[in-house]
Amino acid sequence: MNKVVLDAVGGDHGPAECLAGVALALQKGFVQPSNLILTGPVDEVAAAVRTQGLEGKGLAIVDAPDVLTDTDTPTEATRKKPRNSIMLGIQEVREGRAGAFVSAGSTGTVVAAATLGLGCLEGIRRPAIGAIIHGEKNPFLLLDVGANPQPKVHHLAQYALMGSAYYGGTFGIPNPKVGILNIGSEELKGNPLVREARALMKQMPIHFHGNVEGVELYSGECHVVVTDGFTGNVVLKVSEGLAEYLVRTMFGLMQKSGVEPERMGAVKHGIIPRIDFSEYGGALLLGVKGCVTICHGRSRAPAFANAIRFACRAMDAKVNDHIVQAARACELPQAEPNA
Amino acid sequence: MNKVVLDAVGGDHGPAECLAGVALALQKGFVQPSNLILTGPVDEVAAAVRTQGLEGKGLAIVDAPDVLTDTDTPTEATRKKPRNSIMLGIQEVREGRAGAFVSAGSTGTVVAAATLGLGCLEGIRRPAIGAIIHGEKNPFLLLDVGANPQPKVHHLAQYALMGSAYYGGTFGIPNPKVGILNIGSEELKGNPLVREARALMKQMPIHFHGNVEGVELYSGECHVVVTDGFTGNVVLKVSEGLAEYLVRTMFGLMQKSGVEPERMGAVKHGIIPRIDFSEYGGALLLGVKGCVTICHGRSRAPAFANAIRFACRAMDAKVNDHIVQAARACELPQAEPNA
Repeated sequence: MNKVVLDAVGGDHGPAECLAGVALALQKGFVQPSNLILTGPVDEVAAAVRTQGLEGKGLAIVDAPDVLTDTDTPTEATRKKPRNSIMLGIQEVREGRAGAFVSAGSTGTVVAAATLGLGCLEGIRRPAIGAIIHGEKNPFLLLDVGANPQPKVHHLAQYALMGSAYYGGTFGIPNPKVGILNIGSEELKGNPLVREARALMKQMPIHFHGNVEGVELYSGECHVVVTDGFTGNVVLKVSEGLAEYLVRTMFGLMQKSGVEPERMGAVKHGIIPRIDFSEYGGALLLGVKGCVTICHGRSRAPAFANAIRFACRAMDAKVNDHIVQAARACELPQAEPNA
Repeated sequence: MNKVVLDAVGGDHGPAECLAGVALALQKGFVQPSNLILTGPVDEVAAAVRTQGLEGKGLAIVDAPDVLTDTDTPTEATRKKPRNSIMLGIQEVREGRAGAFVSAGSTGTVVAAATLGLGCLEGIRRPAIGAIIHGEKNPFLLLDVGANPQPKVHHLAQYALMGSAYYGGTFGIPNPKVGILNIGSEELKGNPLVREARALMKQMPIHFHGNVEGVELYSGECHVVVTDGFTGNVVLKVSEGLAEYLVRTMFGLMQKSGVEPERMGAVKHGIIPRIDFSEYGGALLLGVKGCVTICHGRSRAPAFANAIRFACRAMDAKVNDHIVQAARACELPQAEPNA
């Protein structure tokens, strides 16, 4: 099943922006209209479909009348508003009517709905959000960037295996280098979580590199970098903020020093893709039974289009099959080392 | 007592670089030679003094024959090599022969030696490393950037108070805005450590802003941003690596697109200070009885010179008096909320 469900009301800019993304994805041939399902309050979604001139194209809409707000916690969303666009989207995947779900809605709610609704893959206890980021040498996968802000040691070990399988499958690199984000290069550095996870990872059937210091992250020397969801989320968001600030400042300085517009255009053309944290379209929630793509809340139309393409590719790449195979091939830690 | 002790063998580049920094500091008038004390193996340090043509200037050397290596843990350094340049430097401060200590040696060893050797200020249980960083609107203080990778809730609360007193005193801003680094703007976001610390900070006599998301950090909107030493260290080092990578990439693109050297020079002149994480010269170890400045291991001469100036200014600003006053003015949490 290669249909994609899009949460048509997720994100900061509402259904108009989501549907502009759909129009772009269709125009670029990323997906066929008959392979797209939209969730959201039907009137609102249908209006946005019409605005984009997409009526009669065969887009399916699943009515999700319960509207989530920023203040709804994942628990409230699940209990009090069960007919929301996220839960009904996940239901399409669970019941086999689609293979992938894409949302720019609340990350916490998507993670909770996917974990409860789809369940975890064999051998995996908790999912992780994996973000593919431009590095200097290679793209690298940072996980977890926010599914679980307080993971346990064995969760991190499972992330390492999932990340290795995912990166290897996606980029055709059989034994990607896996590291753990830490505050020094020495073995004993860091907090107990990182030290114990590092010890476990050393024994796993992955190409384990050891510690990755913050300053090395963007080299892309390590293909997969494991961290807890708190640190990963902070790192990703600090990077976005810093990159935008620096690039904006440099263009200001270029303009001030009289660099010609064409030359500034050429520089812009080269740098923007590198700091576009949505270029890969979204981050995959690794470890659940299904293909769930989490987009940035502030996603614009191009980001939604990329996310749809990304979800289609992830289905084609059979990411979950790779993860399950890798998990079966080893005894993945299932509890705390001292438990 | 306004003498500064410099660990003359700390850092990746050895005594030659430290003494080049001393020469620069003397030349720029940051310090008088009679106010500088150097620690390290006396022959090695004296040779570096001669190389810089500084013999006969009145620089004092305290012989510290025990040489630390990268593999020495703080415990080993303390027990097996007690006559090292860090411990003897701290001893100068403890015994009142100097007011400040500056080192680019192992952060862990400096923190341990200072905490044990000098003790903590009244009301403070654990010190924090505070780094002053260029933000878009304002410089901001990030703490802790690595003294304690696993702090408790009341430690974070104490960091908030120390940071507020330090920033206020340094920049002449009476009520600096204090925030806590978190993975979302909502009250319930984050892990238990952050949520509980946030609740404590709300009750403290500081201008508490609430959560600071990663993407907002470099705006400088919050003057003081509190985080645990693991996350803080990762954020600081990721920022360094990303900034260098982006700026290098942009200069490459500018060159490729034919931007004139003078114009590139003007841009460089504007951007380099913003990404120079050593411009403020070092990070202060807040909370110990004395003025301890921790420099980057890869510090070069200008960074050492700035660190010496920074240490002199911190002594003049009476940072510790501000912290003790602020701590006396409130009931600072001294144990876990649930303990």
